Amino acid sequence: MTAVNDHELKVAFGAAMRKRRTLQGLSQEKLAEMANIHRTYIGDVERGLRNIALVNMRRVAKALGTPLSSLIAEMESELDREG
Amino acid sequence: MTAVNDHELKVAFGAAMRKRRTLQGLSQEKLAEMANIHRTYIGDVERGLRNIALVNMRRVAKALGTPLSSLIAEMESELDREG
Repeated sequence: MTAVNDHELKVAFGAAMRKRRTLQGLSQEKLAEMANIHRTYIGDVERGLRNIALVNMRRVAKALGTPLSSLIAEMESELDREG
Repeated sequence: MTAVNDHELKVAFGAAMRKRRTLQGLSQEKLAEMANIHRTYIGDVERGLRNIALVNMRRVAKALGTPLSSLIAEMESELDREG
């Protein structure tokens, strides 16, 4: 496991989330509505600007129709890809 | 997937974390030191009192020697067990 700083971690989570969202054919607006989270917050998370917490993570995962563990595993793959 | 409220979610994460910590034979103090997080915060998370965010989650997982996705999967098992 390579050293990952906090910024890279947030960016990787955001990338995983965006990938799942686009695979589902959802706009940020639609995901925000489904997850009951503000759209600008969704955008910020996808850009790695937010340290998203457990409750919102699960809302997002649920709206994306995936277990949170799968979304986190996807984040870990993103981190591996970055090396 | 049964409906899970925010409190149950935080309690399940805390339970998963405590389980891994005790399996590793670590005290809260030792885990806190390894993860560079305050001991009282570790205790609060284990009791489901905190909405822990991504950066601290990963620090905890790293200190426990597990991928965060595994810790989250364990949390999901806790939620399933509760029904």
